[in-house]
Amino acid sequence: MALAMAPVLGAITAPLSDHQILVLLVQLTVLVGVARITGWIFRRAGQPSVVGELVAGVLLGPSVLGRISPSVHQWLFGEPGVTSVAFGLAWLGVIMLLVVIGFETNLGIISRFKGAALASAAGALLVPLAVLVPASFLVPESFVGAGTDRGVFAGFFGLALSVAALPVVAKILLDLDLIRRNFAQVTLAAGMTMDSVGWLVLAALSGVAQGGFRPGALALSMAGLVLFVAATATIGRWILDRLFRLVMGRGAAATPAAVSILLVAALLGGVVTQALHLEAIIGAFVVGVVAATTRHQPPQVRSVLETVTTGFFAPIFFAFSGLRVDVSLLDGTALAWGAGLVAASIVAKLVGGAIGGRFGGIRGREAVALGSGLSALGAVGIVVAIVGLNLGVVSETGYTVMILAALVTSMLAPQLLKAVVRKWEVPAEEAERLRAEELRETSELLGVKRILIPTRGGANSVYAARLVSAVFPETETTVMVVDLAPRSWWLRLLRRPAGSPGNPDEVVAELPRSRMVRKRSVDPGAAIAAEARLGYDLVVLGATETGEGTFNTVVDRILALVEIPSIVVRFPGVIEERGLPGNILVPVTATRS
Amino acid sequence: MALAMAPVLGAITAPLSDHQILVLLVQLTVLVGVARITGWIFRRAGQPSVVGELVAGVLLGPSVLGRISPSVHQWLFGEPGVTSVAFGLAWLGVIMLLVVIGFETNLGIISRFKGAALASAAGALLVPLAVLVPASFLVPESFVGAGTDRGVFAGFFGLALSVAALPVVAKILLDLDLIRRNFAQVTLAAGMTMDSVGWLVLAALSGVAQGGFRPGALALSMAGLVLFVAATATIGRWILDRLFRLVMGRGAAATPAAVSILLVAALLGGVVTQALHLEAIIGAFVVGVVAATTRHQPPQVRSVLETVTTGFFAPIFFAFSGLRVDVSLLDGTALAWGAGLVAASIVAKLVGGAIGGRFGGIRGREAVALGSGLSALGAVGIVVAIVGLNLGVVSETGYTVMILAALVTSMLAPQLLKAVVRKWEVPAEEAERLRAEELRETSELLGVKRILIPTRGGANSVYAARLVSAVFPETETTVMVVDLAPRSWWLRLLRRPAGSPGNPDEVVAELPRSRMVRKRSVDPGAAIAAEARLGYDLVVLGATETGEGTFNTVVDRILALVEIPSIVVRFPGVIEERGLPGNILVPVTATRS
Repeated sequence: MALAMAPVLGAITAPLSDHQILVLLVQLTVLVGVARITGWIFRRAGQPSVVGELVAGVLLGPSVLGRISPSVHQWLFGEPGVTSVAFGLAWLGVIMLLVVIGFETNLGIISRFKGAALASAAGALLVPLAVLVPASFLVPESFVGAGTDRGVFAGFFGLALSVAALPVVAKILLDLDLIRRNFAQVTLAAGMTMDSVGWLVLAALSGVAQGGFRPGALALSMAGLVLFVAATATIGRWILDRLFRLVMGRGAAATPAAVSILLVAALLGGVVTQALHLEAIIGAFVVGVVAATTRHQPPQVRSVLETVTTGFFAPIFFAFSGLRVDVSLLDGTALAWGAGLVAASIVAKLVGGAIGGRFGGIRGREAVALGSGLSALGAVGIVVAIVGLNLGVVSETGYTVMILAALVTSMLAPQLLKAVVRKWEVPAEEAERLRAEELRETSELLGVKRILIPTRGGANSVYAARLVSAVFPETETTVMVVDLAPRSWWLRLLRRPAGSPGNPDEVVAELPRSRMVRKRSVDPGAAIAAEARLGYDLVVLGATETGEGTFNTVVDRILALVEIPSIVVRFPGVIEERGLPGNILVPVTATRS
Repeated sequence: MALAMAPVLGAITAPLSDHQILVLLVQLTVLVGVARITGWIFRRAGQPSVVGELVAGVLLGPSVLGRISPSVHQWLFGEPGVTSVAFGLAWLGVIMLLVVIGFETNLGIISRFKGAALASAAGALLVPLAVLVPASFLVPESFVGAGTDRGVFAGFFGLALSVAALPVVAKILLDLDLIRRNFAQVTLAAGMTMDSVGWLVLAALSGVAQGGFRPGALALSMAGLVLFVAATATIGRWILDRLFRLVMGRGAAATPAAVSILLVAALLGGVVTQALHLEAIIGAFVVGVVAATTRHQPPQVRSVLETVTTGFFAPIFFAFSGLRVDVSLLDGTALAWGAGLVAASIVAKLVGGAIGGRFGGIRGREAVALGSGLSALGAVGIVVAIVGLNLGVVSETGYTVMILAALVTSMLAPQLLKAVVRKWEVPAEEAERLRAEELRETSELLGVKRILIPTRGGANSVYAARLVSAVFPETETTVMVVDLAPRSWWLRLLRRPAGSPGNPDEVVAELPRSRMVRKRSVDPGAAIAAEARLGYDLVVLGATETGEGTFNTVVDRILALVEIPSIVVRFPGVIEERGLPGNILVPVTATRS
């Protein structure tokens, strides 16, 4: 037994020599350090920082450092054992990046601008694909990986030049202070749709690249993927939600626990898609998208993951991707082809975005702005390139062209967009919406996302619900009914639950987006306070009917225990049929812990 | 050129096959998933969660999974390429863990309980070392790494059984609600001292293990370490502080930037200590300790790093360490030796802690409690064991004994401590201090750590400073003097600075722990608000003398711009010589953003 294990333990015991650890340390220090500094310089220069991080890799790679000092380059990147560890880290970085991107994929925006987004995404993806995939059949042989089918190559190459980089797009729109404009919202929604579709196409392509074009195997992989997405969106979402809810009661330990849950879930998603002969990152992306839709989310998970990814792991990934760019591989022909393809990609995006946008109701200058925004290839193009390189579909030369295309388009897109929007008047009705949204944003109470309405029924609660549905029409609400349980266990066994004096269903009926939770407790106030800790932003209470003063003891106790802002609403008179009374003053108590 | 680079790029291109990536994914999922679950079970059972995470590794290793299903174990952990990546991640995990531990090493506590802490630490480290190092010369040959000098082995083995695990100790004291007690504070301070000394001894030992006992080389390494610590604590601290200060003005980008800075600095520290033939973790620890003492710290850096480390990277490290435990290697003799050594370690800690505590003024039951707390070997013992294993100083068998000793002592320490403190009355004077501290803790204003006092001198500011030094005697304060600069540049060139009407040095003289910052600005209010954003908790202002209403325009402007709680103090009458006036009501305005 002990003997049989020996090789395994031997492998585990000392996988890296002391010298290798030193090289790894220096490599990570240099990669992250240089990437963050160039990223910062690029951002100061008004460029996306991801471009700077890629450039750091190019500088440290064979094109620059390898030329200036081949021996330093060899020392830093010449140890295969070390490089595979750095690769593992870069690869964990891209998994984390995809979880974060997935987390930020707002299904709400996509569904609000459904038609326009789908039409624009289709235009901005299909037109470039229609131009660039055929063009990829004509590019020099030196772009193609050894022994690779031209068709598979054309798929990867064309896809890499047709996708859109959502983070880059969003950053540009944010920087230009356009993010709230109609066309910008459609651009974002279209970008997210293109992202999602892009990942799926990449999944299909990498399946083909690994198994050859065997329709059976491909169909199996795709069926598996559909099943995986469906299972993640239903059972997976339910389990994630339960787990998040479970850990959120645990105070300080909640966030680390939630980070573990999310990352393990993402890895598990990666296992599934990797086992389906697709890419692990697809699984991580799907898990991220689904996790963002769970009802309970410990509030810091998102920002913690984003911070560590932006601050450490994504730079490793981007710099590592840049490392593999070798400009010396580009001769005149390759450069000419590269420039031509970038130009074709941008023009195709503009034309495709404009055509798609027109179908979706976006016209004129706005449609051009939409196409300009979507012309940045950015991170998605880079990932497609790196997967293509790792699978041997694309050669070093082809890879270099793909990365440079991502760099150039990400730098041109903001300039294009700026040129289009210069001296552009905002239409009156849109300006109105923008003002309303800004107001909503700045008002703290109006920024709430989850509302808890504890109730036992009654007119005040109905009124509270009506107020909520008028002020927060799009907010998810939870109606919580706590039935008082007797203190002694034998009474609890003997007596039936007291039930509510009013009818809680009346309250639910007032709310467009609500669900009901029912609990029994000897201390309803404490039960409500415990629920409120699970990530709600606001508690809305109807003042209890029977109270003689303003509020009775239960309401007082809830106000004392609840640690988030709370509003108590008192029914001011006759409720009009389906509507709020006109100018009646609502006695509102807002507390903030 | 391109040819010369080919092997490098080849290594970078596809370091892991598709199958290897799948294995790596499954390995990480299983390691983190199982570690977090067992950690959670152990915590529910009142045990430190780190013990559970180690146990997860033991379960997945040759002792359990390897027995139940050798083929699964072989599939999971039998790929050397994958294992070296997982090793790299585990190793990054321990670097992050050491930064976090360093960050939490509170030099303030150590210096407050200097005498007692040093005496207890010396006793609790030296007595066990005096018992266990000689004992390590007698242990079976099977514990020793092949071809290793017994002396070096005895150093590692004795050290691993003599250190104390600060996180475990702190957790136990926190759980038992003893953390504020005198002996508990001394225990913490002693634990931190032992930690720091332990890392240094480990550094020396690993130097010896790698270079043999060559006094010259060792002296060189140690001199390098001293130089490194000195440079980090002075120039390093200054650079870190500058960088943190630089990024803190950048809003949302501040935290990722600070995470990059801290991790790159930690890696750089690791590079230095690794290059000195010590351990990389030592450098990370030193950087963590120094970073915690910088004046400016983006507030979330600590919690973000801690969350990701606790939630993902530390579990990988601990589970990975447990993987290498093979219980089947232990025969009767080894078990007997192991049990004997654990017993000797605990007794030696109790005796050593008691003797040391007595010298430091801790007596009787408290001294026993101190020794019990310090008897947990925990994470430090594990790191010593893993370094010993990696250097080949310790055999698999010896490693297994060291890890099991860490497990057993970490589980016994809380039980010991509970037994000692049962039915233990708190002395009256200590109870008084505890009540005062609790009050301070619960009062939000009294919890401030950094205070900004903008002033141009004058009686109100002197009074404000006196108030601050009375209420916050241990808080760091910054006295900021902003001289008004004329708006036009030529006036600025011609005129001398206006200077202050009062004497700011009088204000500084009132404050025990302060430094002064002097600025010129056309808008003093904005300059003060900008400074206040750099991580202060409270702004204390003296009302300006000349104002006719309550406050003049500068004060009003500061109150409007400053985003943190602020207090305006108005001189209520004659200042008594060095003291606060008796019962005069202080008009205080506290605002909270």
